[in-house]
Amino acid sequence: MDEVHQAKPRRWMAEQSDGNEMILFAVNKTITKRRTAMQDVEIVETPSFGTILVLDGLIQSAEDDEHSYHEALVHPGMIAHANPRDVLIIGGGEGATLREVLRYKSVERATMVDIDGELVELCKEHLQGWHQGSFDDPRTELIIGDGRAFLEETDRAFDVIICDITDFLDHGPALRLYTKQFYALVATKMRPGGVLIVQALETSNMDPQEHAMLVRTVGEAFPIVRSYMTFISSFMYLWGFLTASNDVDPSTLTESEVDRRVASRLTSELKSYDGVTHRGYFSIPKDLRAQIAEPGPMLDDNTIETWATREG
Amino acid sequence: MDEVHQAKPRRWMAEQSDGNEMILFAVNKTITKRRTAMQDVEIVETPSFGTILVLDGLIQSAEDDEHSYHEALVHPGMIAHANPRDVLIIGGGEGATLREVLRYKSVERATMVDIDGELVELCKEHLQGWHQGSFDDPRTELIIGDGRAFLEETDRAFDVIICDITDFLDHGPALRLYTKQFYALVATKMRPGGVLIVQALETSNMDPQEHAMLVRTVGEAFPIVRSYMTFISSFMYLWGFLTASNDVDPSTLTESEVDRRVASRLTSELKSYDGVTHRGYFSIPKDLRAQIAEPGPMLDDNTIETWATREG
Amino acid sequence: MDEVHQAKPRRWMAEQSDGNEMILFAVNKTITKRRTAMQDVEIVETPSFGTILVLDGLIQSAEDDEHSYHEALVHPGMIAHANPRDVLIIGGGEGATLREVLRYKSVERATMVDIDGELVELCKEHLQGWHQGSFDDPRTELIIGDGRAFLEETDRAFDVIICDITDFLDHGPALRLYTKQFYALVATKMRPGGVLIVQALETSNMDPQEHAMLVRTVGEAFPIVRSYMTFISSFMYLWGFLTASNDVDPSTLTESEVDRRVASRLTSELKSYDGVTHRGYFSIPKDLRAQIAEPGPMLDDNTIETWATREG
Amino acid sequence: MDEVHQAKPRRWMAEQSDGNEMILFAVNKTITKRRTAMQDVEIVETPSFGTILVLDGLIQSAEDDEHSYHEALVHPGMIAHANPRDVLIIGGGEGATLREVLRYKSVERATMVDIDGELVELCKEHLQGWHQGSFDDPRTELIIGDGRAFLEETDRAFDVIICDITDFLDHGPALRLYTKQFYALVATKMRPGGVLIVQALETSNMDPQEHAMLVRTVGEAFPIVRSYMTFISSFMYLWGFLTASNDVDPSTLTESEVDRRVASRLTSELKSYDGVTHRGYFSIPKDLRAQIAEPGPMLDDNTIETWATREG
Repeated sequence: MDEVHQAKPRRWMAEQSDGNEMILFAVNKTITKRRTAMQDVEIVETPSFGTILVLDGLIQSAEDDEHSYHEALVHPGMIAHANPRDVLIIGGGEGATLREVLRYKSVERATMVDIDGELVELCKEHLQGWHQGSFDDPRTELIIGDGRAFLEETDRAFDVIICDITDFLDHGPALRLYTKQFYALVATKMRPGGVLIVQALETSNMDPQEHAMLVRTVGEAFPIVRSYMTFISSFMYLWGFLTASNDVDPSTLTESEVDRRVASRLTSELKSYDGVTHRGYFSIPKDLRAQIAEPGPMLDDNTIETWATREG
Repeated sequence: MDEVHQAKPRRWMAEQSDGNEMILFAVNKTITKRRTAMQDVEIVETPSFGTILVLDGLIQSAEDDEHSYHEALVHPGMIAHANPRDVLIIGGGEGATLREVLRYKSVERATMVDIDGELVELCKEHLQGWHQGSFDDPRTELIIGDGRAFLEETDRAFDVIICDITDFLDHGPALRLYTKQFYALVATKMRPGGVLIVQALETSNMDPQEHAMLVRTVGEAFPIVRSYMTFISSFMYLWGFLTASNDVDPSTLTESEVDRRVASRLTSELKSYDGVTHRGYFSIPKDLRAQIAEPGPMLDDNTIETWATREG
Repeated sequence: MDEVHQAKPRRWMAEQSDGNEMILFAVNKTITKRRTAMQDVEIVETPSFGTILVLDGLIQSAEDDEHSYHEALVHPGMIAHANPRDVLIIGGGEGATLREVLRYKSVERATMVDIDGELVELCKEHLQGWHQGSFDDPRTELIIGDGRAFLEETDRAFDVIICDITDFLDHGPALRLYTKQFYALVATKMRPGGVLIVQALETSNMDPQEHAMLVRTVGEAFPIVRSYMTFISSFMYLWGFLTASNDVDPSTLTESEVDRRVASRLTSELKSYDGVTHRGYFSIPKDLRAQIAEPGPMLDDNTIETWATREG
Repeated sequence: MDEVHQAKPRRWMAEQSDGNEMILFAVNKTITKRRTAMQDVEIVETPSFGTILVLDGLIQSAEDDEHSYHEALVHPGMIAHANPRDVLIIGGGEGATLREVLRYKSVERATMVDIDGELVELCKEHLQGWHQGSFDDPRTELIIGDGRAFLEETDRAFDVIICDITDFLDHGPALRLYTKQFYALVATKMRPGGVLIVQALETSNMDPQEHAMLVRTVGEAFPIVRSYMTFISSFMYLWGFLTASNDVDPSTLTESEVDRRVASRLTSELKSYDGVTHRGYFSIPKDLRAQIAEPGPMLDDNTIETWATREG
């Protein structure tokens, strides 16, 4: 009966992108699919990247290279901090940012505030490889709620605050976690020597304008802002990050100092981060560097909504 | 800030297809998304076809042309029957097959048996335009369960039995509703003058082999099997159907007789079906006709599983 | 070394379509590729449809189903004509329309006027299966030039004129072969009992508006215009055609009369056309029929350019 | 007449990729298209990347970021060389590698050997922004022919040899420019203090195996082989390069030494290359670094053909 069907049926997923490019990837099977109160969640298995988490049509993280993303997000800022004990993660639903934070012997308490409880439950159940049990670590405190409201109400202060939130341009709820008013609030909750870490958007088509806008915005609240990037294979783009602080500058650490700190402060080895990698993160090509340094608009509570509607 | 984002972001959906062609369509928004116990369900709004229902990555029906599908499925067999009173629908989750059946004044009872109760609930809630309240018609009886088990256990007999089940090649649960053993069972539950109607698979790339296999299989249980086709825009293919009976042959009805029956027996007008359309359904091009008439394999309980695994 | 490359590289071609749907098909190899003075030409081999000819990003015809297109284009009008001896083809670069015309014993002269000589040369060389030597038939006269200019200058008249021109919306040069002024010119070059045949555009998404506009436009020049359709697999759409005449109406021919004429007048058998197929062509579904019959705009020399620029 | 066509037609191009991912990009217009004796050439204008050159379905270089590729290819090796006077480029059809080489005051003669004269002509005509007149520089010598045959026959020796050849896995003619026998030949044509530079394949899905194989293969002929990478936006991947030498190691240059040499040795400023960028190139993430250092197969004249046929 072979003649009936020669070609092998295939499921493809089209990632939402800008209107001029499209990325499709094959899907082996759907693990789960849900519309939560906040967003569209899909967890699927792919031949290209292993299991992936897709939020509102965008790959959020992939089994095969989530370590590249989460190690780049967490370690430059954490390693640069003198002794991080109290860490706040805003967002980070998969639990992998939490996992990287908990590798530090110095960490006594890791508070994670994510607005989408349904998403966190799906991640707990289906993304074991991401959180690796971090939600059960006695140092972990998980709060389901709005990160900005949490910060407004808490009287705690933190050594490191990590914003690991989905792309601000597409997500209504995340918008108010990207404005200068928000970062001013963050600054008031930071302990001396503290470091803010922000996932700071993609650099598609050699165009770092959104990243640059975020760097400028954070720069209103902190004197030292450092931009860095790494390539995330499943995003197919160079991904931006930043650290901000009153006194800490990760870009000045030598390769060997980074290696020394990794060896002494962490409980386990890392996959992609070390001194050389750290140096690479901060060695942004000249033209991108220049574009990021240019003056331009900032993100503000009073104008940010126009971003959201413009993208609708 | 216009310079930041020139292109308009777009969500696209890639329909699962064979490995050699792919159809993508833009999506305006997701209405709902769920993995039920049986299948992957998505209801999305598109600029091309209005709201669409997608099951396991395949467009199942579309607001803009579901009438083309459901009128083609139901009316040739129903119109050809002398006086259909008791109708059984197997599958038909959206409620639109039910809607078409209930248009007949003669229908006293319409029993619909669908295996996926979660899907039916989603359709009731989100696909009003499909069922148009048919689930609340006093003649309707909805049973959530396996169609074959229902037929094995019931002692009722029917004037018309309609199989409106998803493509057998991709769905484990549906497989046993496409075999010669199943159609032999159907034959025992048919009243004299009864008609079986089957959605009978796509004819992609001028290749009606799956349709032909189904025609042959049904032909084991019924002496008169008639194949017909119409183009369904959102499927982008010619779609096959069949009627089977011991005595009724819809293909012999004249255009004017069809028009006369539509006018006298139905409570409301139809969008695409009338005498001319009926004639068109049965006027299959010569080469397809020849391919459908060729001998070949049939679908059997004992071998059908190999189809499923081969496609996995 | 198998571990280096698990997945099989694949070439895909994206057919230009409207902005809301996209059709991709796999390509085995490129046979030829050329930008002629008029258009973009690609001849590629595909697993889905065999060799295909792509003009300006649109599938023009495919080895596996070009017979469905060319038989539908040529035969209803030719069979309805009493005795076609002198036939003019405008366009038809592949030579397959010519091939179908030459099957008629009555044909004494077949003149083909195509504007793109480079395209015709590529077709002669690479599309043997299409023309099957028709360019060498002694009855064939090939003219490279503009079809409208040819008609304006010739003092000949024809029994059948066939317009087999690419989709008017995308092609500058073809635009003036779709206006009421053009069809008025055609009418003056028609012998008594003559028939005009026009490939009359796709019916995508159950929307026959372009086809309808063409039917109305031709109707300005001829009292009898008959619309018909068939599904072309490689186009993935229902395709429209029309015949126009002062006295001939193909839609009234019975199935058996068509079969009788095919048997007596042609030198060889056809693949998809016969009496039943003919009947199917003219049995357009009710809703499409109604839309085609609605009043609306026509195509005019004075406004047609706005169509072209609008699409640019 | 606006109702006739709501959606804007769009031309998309699907880049050939592995079988599990696909990248599509919109095309504004085709500039030229040709099947040369060697390969399929398309030059198109895109909204994403400006004008792009596509060879055999793969983006070869893009107006908007070709500088990222060509500066990364040429400068680390050229800057590390003490005084490059005589440079050989194998491949490099667009003329942009040549352009970068000619920026060096020390260069007295730049010989470019490309096998595809038709491609070079198309680039001369349509890719002015790439070559910027470099083909007319009196120091330039252009030879149309096979690079390996040229090297076998020449009795010249070079300071720097640059292999800028399309991806070896997909191109028959290029295969023999990637084997250990070829690099052994290269080594015999190198002056003391000479540097070989090789475009060294993509690193897709965090998988640098092809790059690693090439690093190992070149390592058979040269004691010092240095791997480096940068992200090329229009390739959507991290792209690998390598330098090889008996005595020169670019990875040891400090950022300020690179900046000093750029300032003193070049006649013009660069867009993306400087000391920081140079450092970034060689700062490959830890996991990729480890994979590149692993032992494994090499490319050999006697086995390379199996690569080609396997990909066919």
